[in-house]
Amino acid sequence: MNMDYKKVLPHIYEGKANRLYEVEGHPEYLIIERKDDITAGNGAKHDTIEDKGFYNNKISNQLFWVLRNNSAVVPTHFVQELSDCETLIQKTNPIKLEIVVRNIATGSIIERLPFDDGQEFTNPIFELYYKDDALGDPLINHSEALALGVISERDYADIEGMALIVNDTLKEFFNEIGIILVDFKIEVGRTPQGDLIIIDEISPDTCRLWDAETRKKLDKDRFRQGLGDEAGAYREIYRRVCEQVFFIVFRDV
Amino acid sequence: MNMDYKKVLPHIYEGKANRLYEVEGHPEYLIIERKDDITAGNGAKHDTIEDKGFYNNKISNQLFWVLRNNSAVVPTHFVQELSDCETLIQKTNPIKLEIVVRNIATGSIIERLPFDDGQEFTNPIFELYYKDDALGDPLINHSEALALGVISERDYADIEGMALIVNDTLKEFFNEIGIILVDFKIEVGRTPQGDLIIIDEISPDTCRLWDAETRKKLDKDRFRQGLGDEAGAYREIYRRVCEQVFFIVFRDV
Repeated sequence: MNMDYKKVLPHIYEGKANRLYEVEGHPEYLIIERKDDITAGNGAKHDTIEDKGFYNNKISNQLFWVLRNNSAVVPTHFVQELSDCETLIQKTNPIKLEIVVRNIATGSIIERLPFDDGQEFTNPIFELYYKDDALGDPLINHSEALALGVISERDYADIEGMALIVNDTLKEFFNEIGIILVDFKIEVGRTPQGDLIIIDEISPDTCRLWDAETRKKLDKDRFRQGLGDEAGAYREIYRRVCEQVFFIVFRDV
Repeated sequence: MNMDYKKVLPHIYEGKANRLYEVEGHPEYLIIERKDDITAGNGAKHDTIEDKGFYNNKISNQLFWVLRNNSAVVPTHFVQELSDCETLIQKTNPIKLEIVVRNIATGSIIERLPFDDGQEFTNPIFELYYKDDALGDPLINHSEALALGVISERDYADIEGMALIVNDTLKEFFNEIGIILVDFKIEVGRTPQGDLIIIDEISPDTCRLWDAETRKKLDKDRFRQGLGDEAGAYREIYRRVCEQVFFIVFRDV
């Protein structure tokens, strides 16, 4: 752990997969600590996966690095990796939305709408879900998002644009390492300056990632569907992401 | 019944509240016959309301007349009223969407999202539902509507614009007769020329209508919620709509 940044104990928030701490002398930052816990079905199914906190911390930080070093820069809350499972992040006011982009139909959308499992969309699907556990995080449309007061018309356009840039960037990044980016969920927060930036994480917990050759699932669906070897899947994504980031860094030197 | 237009028996379609017939010698038209049947909960609850077919036929035809005689003309499938419960309509290719506009929160939206029953929206809510009984007519968003292939980007904008004009027009019309237009559902079809026009009906089956003074429900919610006197509510809407149309016709002469 970097000695410049000390957690204020106890944590101020504990979610399903992480804890948040304030930072001594730095009200503008938080420390996010990623846990090995894994849940599905809004917490109905729960377990721990060895080293998941480590894998997700490293994967998410590297993907956020990819987003910042892309030609179309996407701002995120990432500041500095402090340890295997801890990262210094910018404190924001989180927006109560889950932002989903889908390139291939699978999961909840094929229960809800007449798409075939594995069907590729001509254009990516962009969806907003209202973050509310008691209501089951319902899908909302454009005018509902405005009526709920969570975002403005301008924010809506910004969020849609940002989500599609993240999709283009990460689809290409994963493609280079033989992985299909099936879909993903991101969250955004508002900085004190009023900007929307990406928060939370981008990891096998929040993306569907399939091996391009075998179509093997390398994400949380292994847990959701009881397919086993979750740790192996997260490790495989970690390994390939690290190699590609290493490659990009040294390619650009 | 107007003798120029003869139904071809038997009907080609029977829905929950109407039957459709082809017309002898007029392949461009259909005859819609409105029934007294009333259903709720996707057909789970069923009954008949005396003269409902008559009221809805007259109310819908007059509201379609209002939409055509408005400054911002909204095209509908209405051609000619043939009898108390029968109307000649333009044949179209129906789009598998239910188009909903809400001015006040009530019904399904308050189960799904944190709005209060009776809360007025600052701007009307515009929603699309994919018409599919087996899937329970799910809410869909903009990019899902495009991915399902039911409408194009251009159609989406046209439908949203049309729905909001219908809302503005009918809100004002109902306001003149002491009724609050809480929300409504419309459907559209594509003509052989490729235009989208309003089809089906606009009636107390498809709108929520509250008396402005007493907030008494004068629509199908009386049936859904077992409030009784459904026929009285439909008759009251019929009476006030007729009077106002009569007033407009003679005001403009």
